[in-house]
Formats: sequence, structure tokens, C-alpha cells
Amino acid sequence: MSRSPATRPSTTGLLLDLVRTAGTVSRVELVEAAGLTAGTITNVVRDLIDGGLVHEVGRARTTRGTPRRLIQINPEAGFAVGAQLDRCTTTVVLVDFAGRTQATAGLRGAGQRSPQDTLTTLAEHIDDLLSSAGIVRDRVLGVGLVTHGPQDRARGVLLTDQPSPLWREYPLASALSSALDLPVLLENDATAAAIGEQWAGDVPTATFGVIYMGSGIGGGVVVDGDVYRGRASNTIEIGHITLDQGGAPCVCGNRGCVEVTAGPAAVVAQAMRDRNLAERWSLSGSLDETLVDFERLARASARGDQDAHALLESSAQYLALAAVTLVNLFDLDTIVLAGPAFSTAGPQYRDHVARALSEHALSRELSPAKSLLSANVATAAAVGGALSVLRSSSPGERSRSAAPPPRSLSI
Amino acid sequence: MSRSPATRPSTTGLLLDLVRTAGTVSRVELVEAAGLTAGTITNVVRDLIDGGLVHEVGRARTTRGTPRRLIQINPEAGFAVGAQLDRCTTTVVLVDFAGRTQATAGLRGAGQRSPQDTLTTLAEHIDDLLSSAGIVRDRVLGVGLVTHGPQDRARGVLLTDQPSPLWREYPLASALSSALDLPVLLENDATAAAIGEQWAGDVPTATFGVIYMGSGIGGGVVVDGDVYRGRASNTIEIGHITLDQGGAPCVCGNRGCVEVTAGPAAVVAQAMRDRNLAERWSLSGSLDETLVDFERLARASARGDQDAHALLESSAQYLALAAVTLVNLFDLDTIVLAGPAFSTAGPQYRDHVARALSEHALSRELSPAKSLLSANVATAAAVGGALSVLRSSSPGERSRSAAPPPRSLSI
Repeated sequence: MSRSPATRPSTTGLLLDLVRTAGTVSRVELVEAAGLTAGTITNVVRDLIDGGLVHEVGRARTTRGTPRRLIQINPEAGFAVGAQLDRCTTTVVLVDFAGRTQATAGLRGAGQRSPQDTLTTLAEHIDDLLSSAGIVRDRVLGVGLVTHGPQDRARGVLLTDQPSPLWREYPLASALSSALDLPVLLENDATAAAIGEQWAGDVPTATFGVIYMGSGIGGGVVVDGDVYRGRASNTIEIGHITLDQGGAPCVCGNRGCVEVTAGPAAVVAQAMRDRNLAERWSLSGSLDETLVDFERLARASARGDQDAHALLESSAQYLALAAVTLVNLFDLDTIVLAGPAFSTAGPQYRDHVARALSEHALSRELSPAKSLLSANVATAAAVGGALSVLRSSSPGERSRSAAPPPRSLSI
Repeated sequence: MSRSPATRPSTTGLLLDLVRTAGTVSRVELVEAAGLTAGTITNVVRDLIDGGLVHEVGRARTTRGTPRRLIQINPEAGFAVGAQLDRCTTTVVLVDFAGRTQATAGLRGAGQRSPQDTLTTLAEHIDDLLSSAGIVRDRVLGVGLVTHGPQDRARGVLLTDQPSPLWREYPLASALSSALDLPVLLENDATAAAIGEQWAGDVPTATFGVIYMGSGIGGGVVVDGDVYRGRASNTIEIGHITLDQGGAPCVCGNRGCVEVTAGPAAVVAQAMRDRNLAERWSLSGSLDETLVDFERLARASARGDQDAHALLESSAQYLALAAVTLVNLFDLDTIVLAGPAFSTAGPQYRDHVARALSEHALSRELSPAKSLLSANVATAAAVGGALSVLRSSSPGERSRSAAPPPRSLSI
């Protein structure tokens, strides 16, 4: 009937996250927010202060009685890395224990390289990022490695031939963990984007969905503040809803999916069929350059190019259908568009999604769902990966002496 | 970050449900299952025994130490009614406080009647059911009124013109509450079917989806034992996924939805186009008789009629696509088919869904999703409605003296 105790977050983790979200908070406010007794809060907060994870920062004025002592996260208590890896792009972020981004780096994606080569490069870039931020390895809690799905998170492997068959079952999490001597947690890109939006975005509600568009299209859902995980986090594959049964074959084995109908690769492929358009926008047509090509096309549309505009209109209409399905199935307040493909094209997609939701979502009369463009389209997923690390660990829990090296965090 | 305290079930409700599910259980087992302290369990169980809601039933042998005292729900502590109301059928069940079905009744659906007339008839039937079961009104905790969506559960009204515009915004819950002088809780039919399956079905997992097919098609999802509710329970409108954008218009305002492509009314309408088929199977073609017609067609298919078989095959293939989408979005272990339309046609649909899930679900390599036919296709939703009442109330909480009469339970 209820979740098993093992899947409930620990009281310590819950309180740390409440303090992290609130910024500055009193014990009384924590009692109200956590639904725990004052005694429990007092004890756990004392342990957190003793462990250096939170600290007291003064007193709040109250209308009567003793002023309440306020606490904050100690941002120096630890750090986490989020690394979002895609066929076309890689984004790395470093966040402090308060969840604030300290440094970011963008580099090329996996392309045609082997997972081994890709992870070696990624590990070097993470090393560089830590060095330039002046953070020694001992202070890093772990890395959230963010990729497309389907994944087996417990084993830290992909269950797909994308971007090439070499990646299927390659021990991504443990290989990166060995390379860095840090715990590594595997996370789905769209789920991570939802976590990133929840944390660093401007979403005005605790119940929302994310449509994530990078090289592929995925979705994430947060309900009443909780990330929707399903049985094993292979959730909300919104890119693989069938829109046209007679449509083009998709890597997932079906036909006419949202991804092959509306995704960046489909838009670029359609442009490539007209040599004039491909030349006008300097498209390469290489799958490894899909997001670069798509961005060129989006900039052309933004400059008033009617042909580019028409291609994006068609894609946006299909994506809007997927957004309606997302709202009709998950009953959401808001759809947030995130991911690097929305860097320039975002507003055009957002407007289509908004119109489709207001005209076609079933529960629109109860309260129409809104459409927002993420304020961090390119980094939301990486930030979410880093947040997952913060939420699944605390500095005291990490064993540095364990051998073999720590390979994964609790998922 | 976490659910607000107000949306967490009460400790009393949680424990009652654990005892109800377990059948017979010791306090030690409750401590493990609930993740609460032994002290809390001892106190709450004492209150439950004092209130007559559970009772002790002996001791269990243990390998060492004192034998553990066992407790059970007192089935006589209260009763609940579930009433599933559809255009074509109505099903009423009476359950005791242990959740066991005591009596059932089936009657015609709402058809073309006004909500007022329909509820008057329904109230009479509920009265008759209680009388014949020998249960006085004072012992009934409330009625779970189960209908299609979208609904505004808080106000107890439908937000749709189905089955006719008279139903939109009609005060269903409060009108039935006044007619019966009982609290009434409005519940979505597919969500109720998921609750009913979770409770009375043979589902071997805590993470599953239900595809519910009555006059329409809907879905329900249970994740790790919790019913998925979204923002306001207007969830998983699987009947309104667009399969064919150029398809027939649907009552939802879109085109080519699963419901107008694969639903019972669509199957019957296609049969009606051939006068020979309509005569062979004695179809009326009236929308109010859709489920009767569909059942005749399903029986013809089961007897070996190839034309009937072909019509159902086509519908089952579309429904299987919807099942794949449900698994790809919600990441589920199992899909259960429930609802009166599966009474005879169930096995044919189940086989199609099973094949589609094994061939097309994205996470099939992690663990293939299974397809089951409910053991209670016709009553699952009504049972779920009654269970919702048991879970949202306890006998001591109901105020009999309040005026105006109690109109709704906590949702």
C-alpha cells in the first residue's frame, strides 16, 4: 500500500533538501515543512551542525517570544558534478553543497567515438573543471552522469545501441568512477532536466512536466515536489509516442514516433533534401552535428527566413501534440521546454505548445496548463545530475578508503 | 521537495490500510512495513482497538521470545458503497471494513436520462442493496461515486458534456449525498479500477497500469503501491492519445484518438456499416447500448465468427499501441485490462497487448512488462470506489449530526 521504508528518503536527506531549497530557515519552519516532531528536527539539525553540513546564521525577529535561530546549508560542505553527455554535446557543471552552480563547461558530444574514449575525455574535462575552480577531489561527493535512456541505473549501463552498438551494456558509471576515483550515479537526461528545473528554474508550481529536446526527445515529470520514477526511472519516453503508424522507422523499433517526426534530426534531414536550403544555412547533415545544424536553422528562422520558420512550425506542431498527451496522461499544471535544441527555437515551440494545451488538453477547464521555456535550456539536465548526487549522499557518508573504488551512489 | 503534510495519509489511515491489506499482522510486522517507531505503532494500535476498528485474534509462534499478538481489521466496524456509473452500465458494490465485497448489483447505465433521474434511481438501488444486506445507514461510511472524467473532485462535478450537456457541472456528489444522507466522494473510473485491482486483483507487482474499457477508454497507474493522482486526478486519459491526426473527431475536441479508433462504440459503429453483420449479431447501434452490442460481437468472435474476430483484432491492435505508450511513459511492470468491455473479448486484447509490449516497449530489456486480464473486469472500478471511501475515512470521524448533511469525504 505504501512505499517500502527503503525507498523513502532518509530524514537527514529530507531535511538537508528542505534547508537547501529554503535558503534560510528556522527549526519551527522545518517542523511545519517536514511534518516531523520538534524533537526529531532538533536532534537531526544538531547532528547536521555538528557534521558541518548546516550552520546557524543569526536570529529572525518574531512578533512574540524568543527570536528564532536561523540555519543555512554550509555551501563548502561538499561539491557535486553533473555531466550531461549526448551524441552532439556535453555539458559539465560543478555545484556547491547549497546547489549553486560554481563552474560550467561545454564540449563536443560522443559522436562516433567509443564510450571508452568519450569517458576518458570527459574525465579529463571534469578534472580540469575541478582544478580551475580550486576544488580538491576529496571534497567532491560524486558525479551525476546524465544520458539518454533506456538505462539500467542500478548497474550504470545503457540498454540501447545509441549512439552506437558499442554503448549498449558498456559499464559507463563504473568506468567513469574508476577514471575519476569518485562515485558516479547514472541519470536519465529528461528526468535530470526536471530536477534541474525544479531546483534552478522559475517553475511556479510543484506539479509540472519537462519536454527535453537534445539530439533526441524525452520527458520528465515532478508531482507535488516528487520526481516521477516509475519502476526504474525509464520514464516518460515522450519522443516515442507514435504519431503516425505509417511513418518513418525509429531507432526504438516503432514507426512515426515524435522523435522521427518532430526531432532536430528529422528537421535537419528534411532541410537536407533541398540542396538550396542546406547551402543557405550551411548545414553539414552529419548526425553528430545535428544540434549545430538545428541551431543554424533556428537562427535563420529567428532572422525571418520563411523556409526555416516553416520547417520549425511543422516540428513544433507535432511536439505540441506530444505535450497535450503528456498533460492528458500525467495531469500537470505546466509544461517546461528544456534542452539545447530550444536555445534559439524555444519561443516558437513554446507558443505552439501553449496554444495546443489551451485548445486540446482534457482538463483545461479545471485549470489550463501553462507552457514555459526553461531559463537554463542548455544546462538544466547537467544541474539536475549534480542535484541528484547532493540528494543521494551526504559528506560524512562517503567512504574514501573503500577498495575497490566507490562506484555508485544510492539510487 | 516533499509532499506537504496535508497530502500525506494520516498515520491511522496508513496503519488501517496496512492491516487491511495484510489480513492478520503483528505489531512488529507493522513497525517494519510502516517505517514508524514501535512506540507510535503501539499507541495507534491501542487507539484502533479501543475504537473497535481492529481486534486481537491470538498469538503467532516465534522462534524465540514471547509469541507476537496478532491483530485484524474488525470487518463490522463500518461499510462502504462503490457505485460505478457509465452511459451503458451501473455497478454497485457493498464492502465491509475489511474491504471484502458483501453484495453487488448491476443495472442499466445513465443513457439519455438526466443526472437527477439517474441519481434518484441509483440512490434507490443503493438503499435496496443496503436493506437486502441488512446494513443500517448509520454503519455506512460513505459512497464512492465512480464516473468518467474529467472531473472536479473537490466540487464533485463533471467537466464534460458526456453523456449529455446536462451532466456538465451538475452537483453529482452533493445531490447523491443529499438523496442518501451519506458522504459521497467522486472518483475517476480508471483510477478506481486501478485501486480495485490493487486491492482485489491478482496483480503480482506494486507498479502497474490499468487500461479501463467501458463505454470509453481510460487508464490508471499505481507506482510502488501509491495511486498516481497528478495535480487533481484527471490522469492517464489513455483513450485520448492521438493515433491518427486525420482520423474521426472525438468528443474531447481532438481527432483520431484511441477511443474513436479502438473503443467499443467505434467497433460497433464499424459493424453497423454492414447491415448483414448488424443483423447477424442483433446489434442495436444505439450509443446507450454500446456495451451490450459490443458484448454480442465479442461472443460471436469467441464462437469463431471471423468477421467479428477481425473487427476486434483491429481494435486490439490500436489498444496495444496505447498500452505501449502507457508503459513507455510511466515505466510499468504490468498492464492490467479491466472494465466491462473485456468481459468476453478480454483474452483477445490481452494477447495483443502482451505481444506489443514484448516487441515495442522501450525498457523491455530491463524487464519485459506483462499483460494481465483482471479477474474482476466488471466490478474492479466499483470496488475501487468503495476502497477509496474506506481509505479516506474512519468510523469515528464521521459526524452524523452535522447540518447541512455531510456531502463529501476528504479527497
